[in-house]
Amino acid sequence: METLAPAFVYRHTKVRITTEMTTEFIDLTDSLEELLAQSRIVTGFLNVQSLHTTAAIVVNEREPLLLSDFEVLLRKVAPDDVAYRHDDETVRTVNLSPGERPNGSSHCKALLLGSSACLNVLNGRLLLGRWQRVFLAELDGPRSRDISVLLIGEAAQ
Amino acid sequence: METLAPAFVYRHTKVRITTEMTTEFIDLTDSLEELLAQSRIVTGFLNVQSLHTTAAIVVNEREPLLLSDFEVLLRKVAPDDVAYRHDDETVRTVNLSPGERPNGSSHCKALLLGSSACLNVLNGRLLLGRWQRVFLAELDGPRSRDISVLLIGEAAQ
Amino acid sequence: METLAPAFVYRHTKVRITTEMTTEFIDLTDSLEELLAQSRIVTGFLNVQSLHTTAAIVVNEREPLLLSDFEVLLRKVAPDDVAYRHDDETVRTVNLSPGERPNGSSHCKALLLGSSACLNVLNGRLLLGRWQRVFLAELDGPRSRDISVLLIGEAAQ
Repeated sequence: METLAPAFVYRHTKVRITTEMTTEFIDLTDSLEELLAQSRIVTGFLNVQSLHTTAAIVVNEREPLLLSDFEVLLRKVAPDDVAYRHDDETVRTVNLSPGERPNGSSHCKALLLGSSACLNVLNGRLLLGRWQRVFLAELDGPRSRDISVLLIGEAAQ
Repeated sequence: METLAPAFVYRHTKVRITTEMTTEFIDLTDSLEELLAQSRIVTGFLNVQSLHTTAAIVVNEREPLLLSDFEVLLRKVAPDDVAYRHDDETVRTVNLSPGERPNGSSHCKALLLGSSACLNVLNGRLLLGRWQRVFLAELDGPRSRDISVLLIGEAAQ
Repeated sequence: METLAPAFVYRHTKVRITTEMTTEFIDLTDSLEELLAQSRIVTGFLNVQSLHTTAAIVVNEREPLLLSDFEVLLRKVAPDDVAYRHDDETVRTVNLSPGERPNGSSHCKALLLGSSACLNVLNGRLLLGRWQRVFLAELDGPRSRDISVLLIGEAAQ
Protein backbone atom coordinates (compact mmCIF):
# COMPACT_ATOMS: atom_id res chain seq x y z
CA MET A 1 0.00 0.00 0.00
CA GLU A 2 1.48 3.32 -1.01
CA THR A 3 -0.20 6.70 -0.99
CA LEU A 4 0.79 10.23 -1.74
CA ALA A 5 -0.29 12.45 1.10
CA PRO A 6 -0.04 16.13 0.32
CA ALA A 7 -1.95 17.08 3.47
CA PHE A 8 -1.12 15.87 6.93
CA VAL A 9 -3.01 15.91 10.19
CA TYR A 10 -1.78 16.05 13.78
CA ARG A 11 -3.84 15.43 16.83
CA HIS A 12 -2.54 15.66 20.35
CA THR A 13 -4.49 14.71 23.45
CA LYS A 14 -3.50 14.59 27.08
CA VAL A 15 -5.42 11.91 28.94
CA ARG A 16 -5.74 11.95 32.74
CA ILE A 17 -6.16 8.69 34.59
CA THR A 18 -6.72 8.14 38.29
CA THR A 19 -5.19 4.88 39.41
CA GLU A 20 -6.45 2.99 42.45
CA MET A 21 -3.81 0.45 43.38
CA THR A 22 -0.06 0.33 44.01
CA THR A 23 0.47 -1.73 40.88
CA GLU A 24 -2.18 -1.72 38.20
CA PHE A 25 -2.45 -2.28 34.46
CA ILE A 26 -5.00 0.06 32.92
CA ASP A 27 -6.15 -0.85 29.44
CA LEU A 28 -5.90 2.25 27.21
CA THR A 29 -6.76 0.53 23.92
CA ASP A 30 -10.40 1.61 23.59
CA SER A 31 -9.53 5.22 24.48
CA LEU A 32 -6.73 5.23 21.91
CA GLU A 33 -9.02 3.81 19.22
CA GLU A 34 -11.54 6.52 20.01
CA LEU A 35 -8.95 9.29 19.74
CA LEU A 36 -7.91 7.77 16.43
CA ALA A 37 -11.49 7.71 15.14
CA GLN A 38 -11.97 11.37 16.13
CA SER A 39 -8.78 12.36 14.28
CA ARG A 40 -10.05 10.68 11.07
CA ILE A 41 -6.44 9.62 10.45
CA VAL A 42 -6.29 6.64 8.11
CA THR A 43 -2.56 5.89 7.96
CA GLY A 44 0.15 7.03 10.34
CA PHE A 45 1.64 6.68 13.79
CA LEU A 46 0.17 6.93 17.26
CA ASN A 47 2.79 7.55 19.92
CA VAL A 48 1.59 7.16 23.51
CA GLN A 49 3.83 8.39 26.34
CA SER A 50 3.58 8.14 30.07
CA LEU A 51 4.56 11.54 31.50
CA HIS A 52 5.83 9.92 34.70
CA THR A 53 8.94 8.17 35.95
CA THR A 54 7.09 5.51 37.96
CA ALA A 55 4.44 4.58 35.38
CA ALA A 56 5.14 2.85 32.07
CA ILE A 57 3.44 2.02 28.78
CA VAL A 58 3.36 -1.67 27.82
CA VAL A 59 1.68 -3.82 25.18
CA ASN A 60 0.55 -7.32 26.12
CA GLU A 61 -2.52 -9.47 26.77
CA ARG A 62 -5.46 -8.44 28.95
CA GLU A 63 -5.83 -11.55 31.04
CA PRO A 64 -6.22 -10.73 34.74
CA LEU A 65 -4.11 -13.63 36.03
CA LEU A 66 -1.33 -12.79 33.58
CA LEU A 67 -1.37 -9.20 34.81
CA SER A 68 -0.85 -10.51 38.35
CA ASP A 69 2.05 -12.63 37.02
CA PHE A 70 3.57 -9.43 35.63
CA GLU A 71 3.26 -7.86 39.07
CA VAL A 72 5.08 -10.82 40.63
CA LEU A 73 7.81 -10.63 37.96
CA LEU A 74 8.41 -6.93 38.55
CA ARG A 75 8.48 -7.38 42.33
CA LYS A 76 11.03 -10.15 41.93
CA VAL A 77 13.31 -8.03 39.71
CA ALA A 78 12.96 -4.85 41.79
CA PRO A 79 11.77 -5.85 45.28
CA ASP A 80 10.12 -3.30 47.56
CA ASP A 81 11.97 -4.53 50.62
CA VAL A 82 15.58 -3.94 49.66
CA ALA A 83 17.36 -0.63 50.20
CA TYR A 84 17.34 1.99 47.45
CA ARG A 85 19.63 4.97 47.83
CA HIS A 86 16.87 7.10 46.23
CA ASP A 87 14.82 6.43 49.38
CA ASP A 88 17.57 7.22 51.88
CA GLU A 89 16.64 10.59 53.40
CA THR A 90 19.95 10.74 55.26
CA VAL A 91 21.96 11.15 52.05
CA ARG A 92 19.66 12.39 49.29
CA THR A 93 19.71 16.08 48.37
CA VAL A 94 18.18 16.29 44.86
CA ASN A 95 14.51 16.55 43.70
CA LEU A 96 13.11 16.13 47.20
CA SER A 97 9.37 16.69 47.58
CA PRO A 98 7.57 17.10 50.90
CA GLY A 99 5.88 13.85 51.95
CA GLU A 100 7.47 11.86 49.13
CA ARG A 101 6.91 8.14 49.46
CA PRO A 102 9.83 5.69 49.14
CA ASN A 103 9.62 4.53 45.52
CA GLY A 104 13.08 3.46 44.31
CA SER A 105 11.65 0.07 43.34
CA SER A 106 8.88 1.75 41.29
CA HIS A 107 11.45 3.73 39.29
CA CYS A 108 13.43 0.52 38.66
CA LYS A 109 10.34 -1.26 37.36
CA ALA A 110 9.51 1.69 35.09
CA LEU A 111 13.08 1.73 33.75
CA LEU A 112 12.75 -1.89 32.62
CA LEU A 113 9.31 -1.44 31.02
CA GLY A 114 9.83 1.81 29.14
CA SER A 115 7.82 5.00 28.97
CA SER A 116 6.16 4.92 25.55
CA ALA A 117 4.93 2.88 22.60
CA CYS A 118 4.78 3.88 18.96
CA LEU A 119 1.94 2.08 17.16
CA ASN A 120 1.18 1.75 13.48
CA VAL A 121 -2.18 2.99 12.16
CA LEU A 122 -3.66 1.42 9.03
CA ASN A 123 -7.14 1.79 7.57
CA GLY A 124 -8.09 4.03 10.47
CA ARG A 125 -7.33 1.34 13.08
CA LEU A 126 -4.48 0.62 15.46
CA LEU A 127 -2.51 -2.27 14.07
CA LEU A 128 -2.60 -4.69 16.98
CA GLY A 129 -2.49 -8.46 17.08
CA ARG A 130 -5.41 -10.54 18.31
CA TRP A 131 -4.32 -10.53 21.95
CA GLN A 132 -2.50 -7.20 22.08
CA ARG A 133 -3.75 -4.40 24.30
CA VAL A 134 -2.00 -1.18 25.29
CA PHE A 135 -1.67 -0.53 29.03
CA LEU A 136 -0.61 2.18 31.36
CA ALA A 137 1.40 0.29 33.98
CA GLU A 138 0.96 2.05 37.31
CA LEU A 139 3.94 1.12 39.48
CA ASP A 140 3.61 3.59 42.36
CA GLY A 141 -0.10 4.20 42.82
CA PRO A 142 -2.61 5.23 43.62
CA ARG A 143 -1.92 8.49 41.79
CA SER A 144 -3.28 10.85 39.18
CA ARG A 145 -1.47 10.16 35.89
CA ASP A 146 -1.17 12.04 32.60
CA ILE A 147 -0.61 10.40 29.26
CA SER A 148 0.34 12.16 26.03
CA VAL A 149 -1.08 10.76 22.79
CA LEU A 150 0.17 12.20 19.51
CA LEU A 151 -1.35 11.05 16.22
CA ILE A 152 0.31 11.97 12.94
CA GLY A 153 -0.87 10.83 9.54
CA GLU A 154 -3.09 11.24 6.55
CA ALA A 155 -6.73 11.90 7.32
CA ALA A 156 -9.79 10.88 5.37
CA GLN A 157 -10.98 13.71 3.10
CA MET B 1 20.09 18.34 7.10
CA GLU B 2 16.74 20.00 6.63
CA THR B 3 14.31 19.46 3.78
CA LEU B 4 10.89 20.72 2.86
CA ALA B 5 8.73 17.77 1.95
CA PRO B 6 5.49 18.78 0.25
CA ALA B 7 4.70 15.17 -0.66
CA PHE B 8 4.76 12.25 1.70
CA VAL B 9 4.77 8.51 1.18
CA TYR B 10 3.47 5.66 3.35
CA ARG B 11 4.20 2.05 2.89
CA HIS B 12 2.78 -0.69 5.07
CA THR B 13 3.77 -4.33 4.86
CA LYS B 14 2.79 -7.29 6.95
CA VAL B 15 5.55 -9.87 7.07
CA ARG B 16 4.87 -13.48 8.04
CA ILE B 17 7.62 -15.51 9.69
CA THR B 18 7.60 -19.16 10.66
CA THR B 19 9.75 -19.77 13.69
CA GLU B 20 11.30 -23.12 14.45
CA MET B 21 12.44 -23.07 18.06
CA THR B 22 11.03 -22.22 21.47
CA THR B 23 13.33 -19.22 21.76
CA GLU B 24 14.83 -17.77 18.63
CA PHE B 25 16.19 -14.45 17.40
CA ILE B 26 15.33 -13.90 13.75
CA ASP B 27 17.29 -11.17 12.00
CA LEU B 28 14.83 -8.88 10.17
CA THR B 29 17.38 -6.26 9.09
CA ASP B 30 17.82 -7.30 5.45
CA SER B 31 14.05 -7.62 4.95
CA LEU B 32 13.50 -4.18 6.46
CA GLU B 33 16.18 -2.65 4.24
CA GLU B 34 14.52 -4.24 1.22
CA LEU B 35 11.09 -2.84 2.15
CA LEU B 36 12.74 0.53 2.58
CA ALA B 37 14.39 0.34 -0.86
CA GLN B 38 11.05 -0.60 -2.48
CA SER B 39 9.33 2.37 -0.83
CA ARG B 40 11.97 4.76 -2.24
CA ILE B 41 11.70 6.67 1.04
CA VAL B 42 14.80 8.76 1.66
CA THR B 43 14.12 10.30 5.07
CA GLY B 44 11.60 9.21 7.66
CA PHE B 45 10.67 6.58 10.20
CA LEU B 46 10.31 2.83 10.01
CA ASN B 47 8.23 1.41 12.86
CA VAL B 48 8.31 -2.38 13.20
CA GLN B 49 5.80 -4.06 15.49
CA SER B 50 5.36 -7.62 16.63
CA LEU B 51 1.64 -8.42 16.49
CA HIS B 52 1.99 -10.94 19.30
CA THR B 53 2.16 -10.98 23.09
CA THR B 54 4.86 -13.67 23.31
CA ALA B 55 7.20 -12.35 20.61
CA ALA B 56 9.17 -9.11 20.84
CA ILE B 57 11.23 -6.76 18.67
CA VAL B 58 14.78 -6.07 19.84
CA VAL B 59 17.88 -4.37 18.46
CA ASN B 60 21.29 -5.82 19.29
CA GLU B 61 24.25 -7.70 17.83
CA ARG B 62 23.99 -10.80 15.64
CA GLU B 63 26.53 -13.01 17.33
CA PRO B 64 25.20 -16.54 17.89
CA LEU B 65 26.78 -17.04 21.32
CA LEU B 66 25.46 -13.68 22.49
CA LEU B 67 21.96 -14.67 21.35
CA SER B 68 22.27 -17.78 23.52
CA ASP B 69 23.37 -15.54 26.42
CA PHE B 70 20.16 -13.53 25.89
CA GLU B 71 18.17 -16.75 26.11
CA VAL B 72 19.87 -17.61 29.42
CA LEU B 73 19.22 -14.10 30.74
CA LEU B 74 15.51 -14.26 29.88
CA ARG B 75 15.14 -17.71 31.38
CA LYS B 76 16.77 -16.49 34.58
CA VAL B 77 14.45 -13.49 34.87
CA ALA B 78 11.29 -15.41 33.92
CA PRO B 79 11.94 -19.12 34.49
CA ASP B 80 9.78 -21.73 32.78
CA ASP B 81 9.61 -23.91 35.86
CA VAL B 82 7.92 -21.60 38.34
CA ALA B 83 4.14 -21.29 38.63
CA TYR B 84 2.32 -18.64 36.59
CA ARG B 85 -1.32 -17.96 37.39
CA HIS B 86 -1.88 -17.47 33.64
CA ASP B 87 -1.15 -21.18 33.22
CA ASP B 88 -3.40 -22.40 36.02
CA GLU B 89 -6.41 -24.00 34.35
CA THR B 90 -8.14 -24.44 37.68
CA VAL B 91 -8.63 -20.69 38.15
CA ARG B 92 -8.35 -18.99 34.77
CA THR B 93 -11.53 -17.95 32.95
CA VAL B 94 -10.43 -15.28 30.40
CA ASN B 95 -9.08 -15.62 26.81
CA LEU B 96 -8.86 -19.39 26.96
CA SER B 97 -8.04 -21.16 23.70
CA PRO B 98 -8.39 -24.90 23.11
CA GLY B 99 -5.03 -26.67 23.41
CA GLU B 100 -3.27 -23.54 24.66
CA ARG B 101 0.24 -24.23 25.85
CA PRO B 102 1.44 -22.92 29.24
CA ASN B 103 3.29 -19.70 28.36
CA GLY B 104 3.21 -17.33 31.31
CA SER B 105 6.99 -17.11 31.23
CA SER B 106 6.93 -16.21 27.51
CA HIS B 107 4.57 -13.29 28.18
CA CYS B 108 6.86 -12.10 30.99
CA LYS B 109 9.89 -12.16 28.70
CA ALA B 110 7.98 -10.24 26.01
CA LEU B 111 6.88 -7.65 28.57
CA LEU B 112 10.50 -6.88 29.43
CA LEU B 113 11.71 -6.72 25.82
CA GLY B 114 8.93 -4.63 24.27
CA SER B 115 6.84 -5.12 21.17
CA SER B 116 8.22 -2.61 18.68
CA ALA B 117 11.11 -0.45 17.52
CA CYS B 118 11.00 2.90 15.76
CA LEU B 119 14.05 3.39 13.54
CA ASN B 120 15.37 6.48 11.81
CA VAL B 121 15.76 6.45 8.01
CA LEU B 122 18.34 8.70 6.39
CA ASN B 123 19.63 8.73 2.80
CA GLY B 124 17.38 5.78 2.02
CA ARG B 125 19.00 3.54 4.66
CA LEU B 126 18.11 2.42 8.16
CA LEU B 127 20.26 4.33 10.59
CA LEU B 128 21.90 1.51 12.51
CA GLY B 129 25.25 1.29 14.23
CA ARG B 130 27.99 -1.04 13.03
CA TRP B 131 26.85 -3.99 15.17
CA GLN B 132 23.13 -3.26 15.34
CA ARG B 133 20.62 -5.68 13.84
CA VAL B 134 16.85 -5.78 14.29
CA PHE B 135 15.40 -9.06 15.52
CA LEU B 136 12.07 -10.69 16.04
CA ALA B 137 12.52 -12.41 19.40
CA GLU B 138 10.42 -15.57 19.39
CA LEU B 139 9.69 -16.47 23.01
CA ASP B 140 7.02 -19.15 22.64
CA GLY B 141 7.77 -20.97 19.41
CA PRO B 142 7.62 -22.63 17.12
CA ARG B 143 4.78 -20.53 15.70
CA SER B 144 3.66 -18.53 12.70
CA ARG B 145 4.27 -14.85 13.44
CA ASP B 146 3.11 -11.60 11.81
CA ILE B 147 5.06 -8.38 11.88
CA SER B 148 3.77 -4.97 10.85
CA VAL B 149 6.20 -2.57 9.18
CA LEU B 150 5.09 0.98 8.52
CA LEU B 151 7.35 3.40 6.67
CA ILE B 152 6.55 7.08 6.58
CA GLY B 153 8.70 9.72 4.93
CA GLU B 154 9.74 11.63 1.90
CA ALA B 155 10.37 9.55 -1.22
CA ALA B 156 12.84 10.13 -4.01
CA GLN B 157 11.16 11.88 -6.96
CA MET C 1 -5.56 20.34 18.53
CA GLU C 2 -5.67 19.59 14.85
CA THR C 3 -3.66 21.25 12.10
CA LEU C 4 -3.31 20.83 8.37
CA ALA C 5 0.36 20.71 7.52
CA PRO C 6 1.05 21.01 3.81
CA ALA C 7 4.78 21.45 4.39
CA PHE C 8 6.91 19.16 6.48
CA VAL C 9 10.38 19.49 7.89
CA TYR C 10 12.98 16.85 8.72
CA ARG C 11 16.08 17.39 10.72
CA HIS C 12 18.63 14.73 11.41
CA THR C 13 21.60 15.15 13.71
CA LYS C 14 24.25 12.72 14.83
CA VAL C 15 25.51 13.55 18.30
CA ARG C 16 28.85 12.25 19.57
CA ILE C 17 29.32 11.70 23.28
CA THR C 18 32.44 10.63 25.12
CA THR C 19 31.58 8.64 28.20
CA GLU C 20 33.88 8.39 31.19
CA MET C 21 32.69 5.51 33.31
CA THR C 22 31.79 1.83 32.89
CA THR C 23 28.16 2.59 33.66
CA GLU C 24 26.89 6.12 33.27
CA PHE C 25 23.62 7.91 32.62
CA ILE C 26 24.18 10.98 30.45
CA ASP C 27 21.32 13.45 30.37
CA LEU C 28 20.53 14.30 26.73
CA THR C 29 17.42 16.39 27.41
CA ASP C 30 18.92 19.87 27.02
CA SER C 31 20.73 18.87 23.82
CA LEU C 32 17.52 17.42 22.38
CA GLU C 33 15.55 20.56 23.27
CA GLU C 34 18.22 22.63 21.54
CA LEU C 35 18.07 20.52 18.36
CA LEU C 36 14.31 20.91 18.47
CA ALA C 37 14.55 24.69 18.80
CA GLN C 38 16.97 24.86 15.86
CA SER C 39 14.60 22.82 13.70
CA ARG C 40 11.74 25.24 14.44
CA ILE C 41 9.43 22.19 14.48
CA VAL C 42 6.25 22.91 16.42
CA THR C 43 4.43 19.57 16.31
CA GLY C 44 5.86 16.17 15.51
CA PHE C 45 8.08 13.34 16.69
CA LEU C 46 11.66 13.22 17.91
CA ASN C 47 13.15 9.74 17.70
CA VAL C 48 16.47 9.29 19.48
CA GLN C 49 18.50 6.12 18.84
CA SER C 50 21.65 4.76 20.34
CA LEU C 51 23.78 3.43 17.49
CA HIS C 52 25.39 0.86 19.79
CA THR C 53 24.61 -2.56 21.20
CA THR C 54 25.98 -1.86 24.68
CA ALA C 55 24.44 1.58 25.21
CA ALA C 56 20.72 2.28 25.57
CA ILE C 57 18.26 5.17 25.60
CA VAL C 58 16.07 5.50 28.69
CA VAL C 59 13.64 8.03 30.13
CA ASN C 60 13.52 8.51 33.90
CA GLU C 61 14.39 10.90 36.71
CA ARG C 62 17.74 12.70 37.08
CA GLU C 63 18.45 12.02 40.70
CA PRO C 64 22.03 10.83 41.26
CA LEU C 65 21.21 8.26 43.94
CA LEU C 66 18.43 6.81 41.80
CA LEU C 67 20.86 6.48 38.89
CA SER C 68 23.14 4.47 41.18
CA ASP C 69 20.12 2.32 42.10
CA PHE C 70 19.61 1.66 38.38
CA GLU C 71 23.23 0.55 38.14
CA VAL C 72 22.72 -1.89 41.03
CA LEU C 73 19.52 -3.21 39.43
CA LEU C 74 21.21 -3.84 36.09
CA ARG C 75 24.20 -5.53 37.75
CA LYS C 76 21.83 -7.78 39.66
CA VAL C 77 19.92 -8.81 36.53
CA ALA C 78 23.03 -9.23 34.35
CA PRO C 79 26.04 -9.68 36.66
CA ASP C 80 29.55 -9.05 35.39
CA ASP C 81 30.97 -12.06 37.19
CA VAL C 82 29.03 -14.89 35.59
CA ALA C 83 30.09 -16.59 32.38
CA TYR C 84 28.80 -15.29 29.04
CA ARG C 85 29.39 -17.40 25.95
CA HIS C 86 29.89 -14.13 24.03
CA ASP C 87 33.07 -13.63 26.09
CA ASP C 88 34.45 -17.14 25.62
CA GLU C 89 37.37 -16.80 23.21
CA THR C 90 37.76 -20.57 23.05
CA VAL C 91 34.46 -21.03 21.19
CA ARG C 92 33.46 -17.73 19.59
CA THR C 93 34.08 -17.22 15.87
CA VAL C 94 31.77 -14.35 14.83
CA ASN C 95 32.27 -10.52 14.93
CA LEU C 96 35.59 -10.74 16.75
CA SER C 97 37.52 -7.49 17.10
CA PRO C 98 41.15 -7.25 18.17
CA GLY C 99 41.43 -6.30 21.84
CA GLU C 100 37.69 -6.66 22.43
CA ARG C 101 36.77 -6.44 26.09
CA PRO C 102 34.45 -9.06 27.67
CA ASN C 103 31.03 -7.38 27.57
CA GLY C 104 28.30 -10.04 27.48
CA SER C 105 26.72 -8.49 30.56
CA SER C 106 26.69 -5.05 28.89
CA HIS C 107 24.78 -6.44 25.90
CA CYS C 108 22.29 -8.10 28.26
CA LYS C 109 21.65 -4.83 30.09
CA ALA C 110 21.18 -2.99 26.77
CA LEU C 111 18.73 -5.65 25.59
CA LEU C 112 16.51 -5.03 28.61
CA LEU C 113 16.63 -1.23 28.35
CA GLY C 114 16.08 -0.76 24.63
CA SER C 115 17.92 1.26 22.03
CA SER C 116 15.63 4.21 21.31
CA ALA C 117 12.82 6.47 22.46
CA CYS C 118 10.18 8.20 20.36
CA LEU C 119 9.05 11.44 22.00
CA ASN C 120 6.09 13.69 21.23
CA VAL C 121 6.72 17.32 20.31
CA LEU C 122 4.04 19.92 21.00
CA ASN C 123 4.25 23.72 20.86
CA GLY C 124 7.92 23.45 19.98
CA ARG C 125 8.80 21.53 23.17
CA LEU C 126 9.46 17.91 24.05
CA LEU C 127 6.44 16.60 25.85
CA LEU C 128 7.99 15.33 29.07
CA GLY C 129 6.60 15.02 32.55
CA ARG C 130 7.93 17.05 35.47
CA TRP C 131 10.60 14.51 36.44
CA GLN C 132 11.29 12.95 33.05
CA ARG C 133 14.72 13.29 31.48
CA VAL C 134 16.13 11.42 28.48
CA PHE C 135 19.41 9.59 29.05
CA LEU C 136 22.02 7.75 27.11
CA ALA C 137 22.75 4.74 29.32
CA GLU C 138 26.40 3.82 28.88
CA LEU C 139 26.76 0.16 29.86
CA ASP C 140 30.26 -0.64 28.60
CA GLY C 141 32.27 2.54 28.93
CA PRO C 142 34.30 4.53 28.75
CA ARG C 143 33.74 4.83 25.00
CA SER C 144 32.96 7.27 22.22
CA ARG C 145 29.23 6.98 21.41
CA ASP C 146 27.06 8.16 18.53
CA ILE C 147 23.40 8.99 18.83
CA SER C 148 20.99 9.59 15.97
CA VAL C 149 18.25 12.17 16.46
CA LEU C 150 15.57 12.50 13.79
CA LEU C 151 12.93 15.20 14.07
CA ILE C 152 9.90 15.15 11.79
CA GLY C 153 7.05 17.60 11.94
CA GLU C 154 5.53 20.89 11.00
CA ALA C 155 7.81 23.89 11.39
CA ALA C 156 6.91 27.44 12.30
CA GLN C 157 6.54 29.58 9.17
